[in-house]
Amino acid sequence: MPEPILLTPGPLTTTRRTKEAMLQDWGSWDQDFNALTAGVCARLTDIVGGADSHVCVPLQGSGTFAVEAALGTLVPVDGKVLVPNNGAYCQRVVRILNTLGRSCVVLPFGEDEPADPVRIARALADDPTITHVAQVHCETGTGILNPLPAIAEAVASQGRSLIVDAMSTFGLIPIDAARMPFDAVIAASGKCLEGVPGMGFVIARRVALEEAAGRCHSLALDLHDQWRYMQRTGQWRFTPPTHVLAALHEALDQYREEGGPPARLGRYARNCQALVAGMRALGLRTFLEDRFQAPVIVTFHAPTDPAYCFEELYARVKARGFILYPGKLTRVDTFRVGCIGAIDTRQIHAAVAAVGEALADMGVRHPANASGEAHP
Amino acid sequence: MPEPILLTPGPLTTTRRTKEAMLQDWGSWDQDFNALTAGVCARLTDIVGGADSHVCVPLQGSGTFAVEAALGTLVPVDGKVLVPNNGAYCQRVVRILNTLGRSCVVLPFGEDEPADPVRIARALADDPTITHVAQVHCETGTGILNPLPAIAEAVASQGRSLIVDAMSTFGLIPIDAARMPFDAVIAASGKCLEGVPGMGFVIARRVALEEAAGRCHSLALDLHDQWRYMQRTGQWRFTPPTHVLAALHEALDQYREEGGPPARLGRYARNCQALVAGMRALGLRTFLEDRFQAPVIVTFHAPTDPAYCFEELYARVKARGFILYPGKLTRVDTFRVGCIGAIDTRQIHAAVAAVGEALADMGVRHPANASGEAHP
Repeated sequence: MPEPILLTPGPLTTTRRTKEAMLQDWGSWDQDFNALTAGVCARLTDIVGGADSHVCVPLQGSGTFAVEAALGTLVPVDGKVLVPNNGAYCQRVVRILNTLGRSCVVLPFGEDEPADPVRIARALADDPTITHVAQVHCETGTGILNPLPAIAEAVASQGRSLIVDAMSTFGLIPIDAARMPFDAVIAASGKCLEGVPGMGFVIARRVALEEAAGRCHSLALDLHDQWRYMQRTGQWRFTPPTHVLAALHEALDQYREEGGPPARLGRYARNCQALVAGMRALGLRTFLEDRFQAPVIVTFHAPTDPAYCFEELYARVKARGFILYPGKLTRVDTFRVGCIGAIDTRQIHAAVAAVGEALADMGVRHPANASGEAHP
Repeated sequence: MPEPILLTPGPLTTTRRTKEAMLQDWGSWDQDFNALTAGVCARLTDIVGGADSHVCVPLQGSGTFAVEAALGTLVPVDGKVLVPNNGAYCQRVVRILNTLGRSCVVLPFGEDEPADPVRIARALADDPTITHVAQVHCETGTGILNPLPAIAEAVASQGRSLIVDAMSTFGLIPIDAARMPFDAVIAASGKCLEGVPGMGFVIARRVALEEAAGRCHSLALDLHDQWRYMQRTGQWRFTPPTHVLAALHEALDQYREEGGPPARLGRYARNCQALVAGMRALGLRTFLEDRFQAPVIVTFHAPTDPAYCFEELYARVKARGFILYPGKLTRVDTFRVGCIGAIDTRQIHAAVAAVGEALADMGVRHPANASGEAHP
């Protein structure tokens, strides 16, 4: 049986060429590897137009390691962070801040509602002790896109600092350091850049990072120390994930060859449209309004037919060559389907067909939930 | 030019088969991947005979991430850690403890002198407030092997807990949970198990880990939380380095096929003997006495001939297909050569020949340093 297509928000399906870049071992002290690191960092910084103002600090581990590193390094011990919360990854930011003992104010939104720049500006105006806003760009828990440019403007107009978890948007939805003030944009190797998982990175404003010496709660996650050491030596402080970096380097080559951000956004948007249209034709309903949907991962309401069971749908669709993703909402029964990775509408059409066949085989007769309506 | 052989202590040269295991993408939520994780963890625990008493907690990142995670999770905030110090990785443990705000007492040894169980026992007897000993097994800064069984006995006889950084010995030098009480043994994927770098793991005493809920200074590095989540779901809390884990799984298969710990120790010991004998025949001197040398990495005194320069030796040996490693001693000019990885004495003989040719081409006439003596 061929390897299944991953319709998940990272790890995702990568090209053979990206994986073949891992067929070589690299000495972590060697100049060839240092050049690989420097090349990757320069290209990541360029993606957000940050070369003049920002630096890229790569970090071993998953994206969450990089989020914790950015918060622990950039937020002073007496800082206070506003977290607009519309989902699981926003809540993870809150959990990290609580663990680190950093003050934190949660601004709640519905899970189907984008964070509102006006309410963010008002919360900042009301509490001058807030120093930072930590904003998740695309909340992967649902797939909702938060309006980052307007949020960045609101934060800047109130004279506060912005930290962006751009895990599932980096390289896809434009972020421009010249127009959108931020202290940090955080992402990882195995998302829209289509590398393999194993490293995160933070594009940090140089001045903010310079001020952060000795502040981090952790040695391993200290971005200032990681940056200074890399500046001095060209090397990572601790053993780097050499093969993961080599794969990311190769993935970035393909990203450029494909046509960079607009081409990737175009492909993922076509994937997303094909997915939503195909699933609606099966009678399935999206959790989000179309205008809030990022072309990253789509949350669908679970069918209310008692014959439906996610584990069975998952197994049947997997047998047809596609890996789905469970829902991450506590109050509503949903499942998710990613539309990112080295795939195009051919795979999406085939995946929708597989879902349709699986539901039919399970005897799910009315995939749409009780109301039966399409989303308004 | 073929890929160079890495004579470095991890990343190291891995087999083609291990790297080819990375030619597949894995869904991190999928049962197939959960089974891969569970299989790797079970085999890692078995290597130290810990199945009845200990659990394996894998962690994203480098080995140092796992060291910090073990210290932050297992040492209480009011704990106090004795660190026998004979090198750079012992000092890194001290730096981590200082960053975490954990009390720490350093017991100094010479860099060419193994940690002494008698002095450790005395230090513990003298200070009943010490709760833990953090012992580096092989100090990779020099390659010295610390006498772990006797140290474990000393620590246990004083009723304290032992945390072992076994980064460069795990799977090579026997560690037996049934005979050698420890709270944690820490290692990583890309060392003697011959996987690729990108994940660490901690074999933790189950009871000690159970007591550690909510203690860690970090969310990403919280081993208790990582363990509980994995117990409940079979999954990693945050995106795992899927390809790195698949490579480690394949490497563990080959480890077993080779004959497990005795076979690996035999091969590395032959590599080490061939390396030391060959380099001595070139007139080079080892930093350590043979009886203290672990068959992992060997530190050599730099030649005192003014024609010698490490960077040039490195470049010339690299051009011949081998990657050396710099020294890590501040007071003595040295360089290091690893003897671990998917290599045998053929590569070692060729590497020694390359060093000899490079020194000759550089015009280094008297490789041995001023004293000219072989090591006593």
